[in-house]
Amino acid sequence: MLVQFSIVPLGSGESISEGVAEVIRIVDESGLPYKTNPMGTVVEGGWDEVMALIRKCHEEVLRGASRVLTSISIDDRPGKPDRITGKVQSIEKRLGREIRK
Amino acid sequence: MLVQFSIVPLGSGESISEGVAEVIRIVDESGLPYKTNPMGTVVEGGWDEVMALIRKCHEEVLRGASRVLTSISIDDRPGKPDRITGKVQSIEKRLGREIRK
Amino acid sequence: MLVQFSIVPLGSGESISEGVAEVIRIVDESGLPYKTNPMGTVVEGGWDEVMALIRKCHEEVLRGASRVLTSISIDDRPGKPDRITGKVQSIEKRLGREIRK
Amino acid sequence: MLVQFSIVPLGSGESISEGVAEVIRIVDESGLPYKTNPMGTVVEGGWDEVMALIRKCHEEVLRGASRVLTSISIDDRPGKPDRITGKVQSIEKRLGREIRK
Repeated sequence: MLVQFSIVPLGSGESISEGVAEVIRIVDESGLPYKTNPMGTVVEGGWDEVMALIRKCHEEVLRGASRVLTSISIDDRPGKPDRITGKVQSIEKRLGREIRK
Repeated sequence: MLVQFSIVPLGSGESISEGVAEVIRIVDESGLPYKTNPMGTVVEGGWDEVMALIRKCHEEVLRGASRVLTSISIDDRPGKPDRITGKVQSIEKRLGREIRK
Repeated sequence: MLVQFSIVPLGSGESISEGVAEVIRIVDESGLPYKTNPMGTVVEGGWDEVMALIRKCHEEVLRGASRVLTSISIDDRPGKPDRITGKVQSIEKRLGREIRK
Repeated sequence: MLVQFSIVPLGSGESISEGVAEVIRIVDESGLPYKTNPMGTVVEGGWDEVMALIRKCHEEVLRGASRVLTSISIDDRPGKPDRITGKVQSIEKRLGREIRK
């Protein structure tokens, strides 16, 4: 399944890039395919591995903040592999050209 | 932690109330505190019990659809119990009156 | 259309109930049907009136914070009125009993 | 402000890439800076121009479906321009290397 998530600490100032950098480091070390965008990170994998990863990130951010908001969006379409690159490619194929990504 | 989630099956028509009813039945049987609103269901509990519940609901909806979109919003503020009723009450206290809920 | 939204100020501490109370006051004064739950507020109306309301709330919260995160979920099903009460009622009808809300 | 959105038609099958391609075409023609990822599209601009664009996309998808779900996440930090590239760059600077995007 394809999963986008973002994690926001409250009570530690308006800049949250320190926590976000730590999250990306954990995602990168997980070995799961991922892509980071300006509003979150998309990972691809099974329920157990993806949720264990998000939990690890959530708990890491919670070490530096007394309240944490985490948003998770799941797009689960069993039998369709490699959607982390395939979804955008199928749009490009329809449009007949590359799009900004 | 307080968690709102919603689960949408794709490819099974515009009405999704059959799947939603099944989800509410599963949530109700879980024994976790919950409140259903027109856009999702809010449950309160620890990471393991809440995520196991959402996974069960997600997989139930996946039995009747080839693609499922699930959204999860977590508000985690350790040490604050009973927020499923307390958050709205604290707003009402500030406003000095009941609000529509 | 049915719209849930939530507005989170960053950089003003872990408690955000002051901003949320102000948001509810603005929603209440708008005259649109609404229901507040522990994770956001659901309003019902046309695009223009709902979005003008959310913008007003967003800008109010921005007066007290240097960064604001706003989430909006729209469920638009033209020709179906009064879904703010009807959606949950249709689930209750399917289940044959009242649910917690 | 930085805004991610995604639009899902219900009742028109499990594949939604036709509607998504149409959305990207509209976004591209708008002239606003944007980046598409596997879970949505991020645009940058003021409230009026961004919301007018999302409304146009939402209504286009509604032409081919009887029900449409649209999710919008806003990150508004006045005075910080070009965040559509800057946010990820600031993470890369912290980590001291490029990340996957």
